[in-house]
Amino acid sequence: MMNTIGKILTLTTFGESHGPAMGGVLDGVPAGAEIDLDALQRYVDRRRTGQSAGSSTRDERDRVEVLSGIWQGKTLGTPIGFIVRNTDARSADYDEMARCYRPNHADFTWQAKYGIRDHRGGGRASARETVCRVVAGGIAMQLLNQLGITIESSITQVGSCHGVTTEDIARLIADAASSGDTLGGVIACTVHGVPAGLGEPVYGKLQAQLAAAMMSIPSVHGFDYGDGFEMAGKRGSEVMDVFVKRDDGSIGTMSNHSGGIQGGISNSEDITMRVAFKPVPTLMRDVPTVDHEGHSVTLHPRGRHDACVLPRALPVVESMAALVMLDNYLMSKNYVHR
Amino acid sequence: MMNTIGKILTLTTFGESHGPAMGGVLDGVPAGAEIDLDALQRYVDRRRTGQSAGSSTRDERDRVEVLSGIWQGKTLGTPIGFIVRNTDARSADYDEMARCYRPNHADFTWQAKYGIRDHRGGGRASARETVCRVVAGGIAMQLLNQLGITIESSITQVGSCHGVTTEDIARLIADAASSGDTLGGVIACTVHGVPAGLGEPVYGKLQAQLAAAMMSIPSVHGFDYGDGFEMAGKRGSEVMDVFVKRDDGSIGTMSNHSGGIQGGISNSEDITMRVAFKPVPTLMRDVPTVDHEGHSVTLHPRGRHDACVLPRALPVVESMAALVMLDNYLMSKNYVHR
Amino acid sequence: MMNTIGKILTLTTFGESHGPAMGGVLDGVPAGAEIDLDALQRYVDRRRTGQSAGSSTRDERDRVEVLSGIWQGKTLGTPIGFIVRNTDARSADYDEMARCYRPNHADFTWQAKYGIRDHRGGGRASARETVCRVVAGGIAMQLLNQLGITIESSITQVGSCHGVTTEDIARLIADAASSGDTLGGVIACTVHGVPAGLGEPVYGKLQAQLAAAMMSIPSVHGFDYGDGFEMAGKRGSEVMDVFVKRDDGSIGTMSNHSGGIQGGISNSEDITMRVAFKPVPTLMRDVPTVDHEGHSVTLHPRGRHDACVLPRALPVVESMAALVMLDNYLMSKNYVHR
Amino acid sequence: MMNTIGKILTLTTFGESHGPAMGGVLDGVPAGAEIDLDALQRYVDRRRTGQSAGSSTRDERDRVEVLSGIWQGKTLGTPIGFIVRNTDARSADYDEMARCYRPNHADFTWQAKYGIRDHRGGGRASARETVCRVVAGGIAMQLLNQLGITIESSITQVGSCHGVTTEDIARLIADAASSGDTLGGVIACTVHGVPAGLGEPVYGKLQAQLAAAMMSIPSVHGFDYGDGFEMAGKRGSEVMDVFVKRDDGSIGTMSNHSGGIQGGISNSEDITMRVAFKPVPTLMRDVPTVDHEGHSVTLHPRGRHDACVLPRALPVVESMAALVMLDNYLMSKNYVHR
Repeated sequence: MMNTIGKILTLTTFGESHGPAMGGVLDGVPAGAEIDLDALQRYVDRRRTGQSAGSSTRDERDRVEVLSGIWQGKTLGTPIGFIVRNTDARSADYDEMARCYRPNHADFTWQAKYGIRDHRGGGRASARETVCRVVAGGIAMQLLNQLGITIESSITQVGSCHGVTTEDIARLIADAASSGDTLGGVIACTVHGVPAGLGEPVYGKLQAQLAAAMMSIPSVHGFDYGDGFEMAGKRGSEVMDVFVKRDDGSIGTMSNHSGGIQGGISNSEDITMRVAFKPVPTLMRDVPTVDHEGHSVTLHPRGRHDACVLPRALPVVESMAALVMLDNYLMSKNYVHR
Repeated sequence: MMNTIGKILTLTTFGESHGPAMGGVLDGVPAGAEIDLDALQRYVDRRRTGQSAGSSTRDERDRVEVLSGIWQGKTLGTPIGFIVRNTDARSADYDEMARCYRPNHADFTWQAKYGIRDHRGGGRASARETVCRVVAGGIAMQLLNQLGITIESSITQVGSCHGVTTEDIARLIADAASSGDTLGGVIACTVHGVPAGLGEPVYGKLQAQLAAAMMSIPSVHGFDYGDGFEMAGKRGSEVMDVFVKRDDGSIGTMSNHSGGIQGGISNSEDITMRVAFKPVPTLMRDVPTVDHEGHSVTLHPRGRHDACVLPRALPVVESMAALVMLDNYLMSKNYVHR
Repeated sequence: MMNTIGKILTLTTFGESHGPAMGGVLDGVPAGAEIDLDALQRYVDRRRTGQSAGSSTRDERDRVEVLSGIWQGKTLGTPIGFIVRNTDARSADYDEMARCYRPNHADFTWQAKYGIRDHRGGGRASARETVCRVVAGGIAMQLLNQLGITIESSITQVGSCHGVTTEDIARLIADAASSGDTLGGVIACTVHGVPAGLGEPVYGKLQAQLAAAMMSIPSVHGFDYGDGFEMAGKRGSEVMDVFVKRDDGSIGTMSNHSGGIQGGISNSEDITMRVAFKPVPTLMRDVPTVDHEGHSVTLHPRGRHDACVLPRALPVVESMAALVMLDNYLMSKNYVHR
Repeated sequence: MMNTIGKILTLTTFGESHGPAMGGVLDGVPAGAEIDLDALQRYVDRRRTGQSAGSSTRDERDRVEVLSGIWQGKTLGTPIGFIVRNTDARSADYDEMARCYRPNHADFTWQAKYGIRDHRGGGRASARETVCRVVAGGIAMQLLNQLGITIESSITQVGSCHGVTTEDIARLIADAASSGDTLGGVIACTVHGVPAGLGEPVYGKLQAQLAAAMMSIPSVHGFDYGDGFEMAGKRGSEVMDVFVKRDDGSIGTMSNHSGGIQGGISNSEDITMRVAFKPVPTLMRDVPTVDHEGHSVTLHPRGRHDACVLPRALPVVESMAALVMLDNYLMSKNYVHR
């Protein structure tokens, strides 16, 4: 259970990486919004294998098939069902996994939980499931943009290297790949144009919702917002975001250590956050592990795998932010009695 | 809305810091569990003002009044309703807040959201609400302990100082307080004795649930698990948790970079996480800010406030971990068909 | 679990009939609504024992204590916590129940489910829990009235007698009571002033939400809306609600067989429904039953019990209708993108 | 929103009747259950047009395509995604509906709610959506059967005729159809083999969940269980279900006026309920109505429509019962602490 995320805007997804298709249902989208399906396909293509250096060269061809909820270019207010067919799935590459557990993967824990699993390519635990996040996030993004809210993300760390250019990223990943090794890194994400007042106090704080959304992405090991972990080392006097009256009469802050959120609610400044990814667990080397009975075995490298997921993860991070922000925008309509 | 957390085990809370009482309803607790109410009161007392250096000296006397769901020392399977009366609330200390916004507090965002707020002591946005988390968490903890699961936490950073003793903490906080300044820090939390197989794949990954729970605590700005943000800087070969057969025949890992969770599901190793707190926003100094109309005003220090919340936050962190872990334990009963 | 009802407006309740208090949390109430607490108390008093013929003569004195969410006569947008203390609870009257199962009560099923129960007065299964529904419903009703929506209910059947006056009701109940017997009946409920467009298609149809709310009231055995069960016996041509243009230019229907709901969504006509109650299960006669081990025993009448709950159930029915209608009103703000 | 039903076992569906496909996601199904997909297809075929007298003669060919969650004949514990393609959709038959509102349909209310609708064949409001209920219900049914729980339903009333044979039904429907008129009726449904202890007290009473599930079926106007509405006219002494010790030592009741549920929880007797359907709203006659602007217009009969839905509704009723019962079975694993 719990293949659903969101409160008023809910996304429910399904699909194993080597089954017939991935898919999902995005419910709660208001009626009458214009959706450009070509733009949506281009948005989803950003996540596609091979789009950037360091990604594997499979041509996954993730064609989005919208099955409901959008008609004549507009949302109907009904649930948007969609699927993306799985193709080019070489199940034979994964036969070894049926018998043994890859380190730092979900093989062992999944077996412990269910007593059964589709081992091919990780099954439901594969990062393949993120394609559904991007389809739904792309739809949410189009609605947000119409409301003046935009989201962008960038890679700020690859491996131990902070502050990286596109060229740096390609080079670092190629270096690691050449030795059969892999890299993690950090993605920074910013939401612009959020009005003050979005977010739910107590358990539904905006940062709690964003953290849950980001930490649910495969390989993510950390989340912070505003000055984040660094803020823990500062004095109160150093991180005070002093309020000022802006030229347009609205109230803003002179600095933004708080990352656009105070008391769990947006304050109209940019919402800033960081998402930390562990290195890809699949090495292109022989790896020691155990089989189902605990006997030592050696895993031999097989198939094609990214040496670093960060370039492909950018639209995933943006999509999760978009889903959370639109959900909170919809909730905000119920704050005041009238 | 969203004053509820949890899926099968749900906690719903209410209360403004200067209203008559804080309270909550813990629903989904299985029947027949023994609850020691005296032990629960002692657990809640750990959060009390004045228990440790750097806390304010108010005697809050948080007496837990259980109103339902526990009878003759056992849970009934019915919702456990409880309240904690608010006492010693000097509302006059907060008159200034009715007109102006304290920096890094929820005053401005709350007003933007609702157009109305109980300004006294922060109202619902006050950290006073965490008393309900501790009451409910203390109950969950007693059930977990009966299942062999234990949780502990410690302060690993105060201000810029990493690796601190109790004496260090007291001294650092006293130093900051002496200049009217405040400190944040980091709490590490570990869950022992978790069987393999707890957690929900995709949106309900154990780390996503834990992150949401921790990030919902007032002042928390960051969360990671296992090697966390540091893991982003390592190579895949450096953080591989190699599987081994334990002496008892079960499968474990030689290292624990993964923090006890793989693919969103527990692997039976200790679950380790870090929670970063920003410095307390209320300084004991004159502070510049604006009033409702954006006019510049100066806030004068008033009332008594902790210079650092970390000592009091320990049971809050443990309680949120306990609520998440028990909820996931309950969910685990539904994994396999029989 | 599942002591919560509602989607955006949620009510969570707790309390055993002979524990310290009943209580609840009403979350999702918009901010800034005026609440008259004296009017609320009078509304709750309608449910009180002894208010009408056939009710037991206990003076329950259900004083509502609001603990949060309302300040200076207005809602804060925060959860409204409330309790009603239990008084005059003669637990000794119920000793027999600890060992044997009363027919048509929840004693046996509760024991089968939890393996433990507070047998005193039915515990959580007692109709005493409806006091929380009325407190929350009374608050929802005040908001609805401010929106022009009103709700009324009346008893249309007592025992086998259809179309009853207040005098009939008193006489019928007295007759039954004189022989130690009890009566059920039917309550009709109408919601006026509902705009067209409230309700959710498919699983959240307005009639499905209303049915769930009404069927959750203790003793209710049936629900229908519009022409209901009678409509099953009519031809399509006999129950057609022909659309007409009203004088104000809006569209209405000439008849209202549909009970104000079409396709699960309100059509601006009155919403009409019926709620069927079984006779009170507690007779003032010796009754044969079994104890925990299945041995035959005889239950002797004890305590004071209503011979018919319908007079006291009117505000309960209205309250459940109010909670559903306000929840759907709040949901309706999210239908269209803007 | 609210295209989801269930608590632990959740069904989320999508699809407009004249869009590319209907579909759904059944989440929370335990792992390791055997599913016979051929038997599932046969179960779904029961709902197909033309299977019985009085149904329209379209050959809808509802081929179920399972996309995830079932592998090698067993459930994986992951969400079961499925679609059923829409075929033979003659949109031109529905052009008239784009401009005017059919009486007793969802055309007007849908337009009022969303300001936009796919008018072709009723869009999302079409009974076509019930195919998804039957697919999911068929899966739930297979799991229930493995647990010894079975469900059956039958038509007990067609039009004004109570107690009908298959021949009666065919004749009554043909009679009505010959004059362009339509019929409703009543379906009785029984659940056998339910252990004592299923159901949630207060808002989640078994009858409340069943009522919500049944009342969400298109055209349903009434629900009751046990002696239902008739019970309202009986005295307490007439409907007492006296407990007895069964031969196997378990406790049962001598009669079953309570319909297998007491206090919202199953008592191990058969669960009995009735579901009332209104007559089909689409007549094969000229019908007066209004267009979007309120002008009077006449609707001319077009397309093919059932004169009575009851024969096709049997598997829909059984499926909703199956979904509710399996969900409650899963919940029951969490009642007692161990």
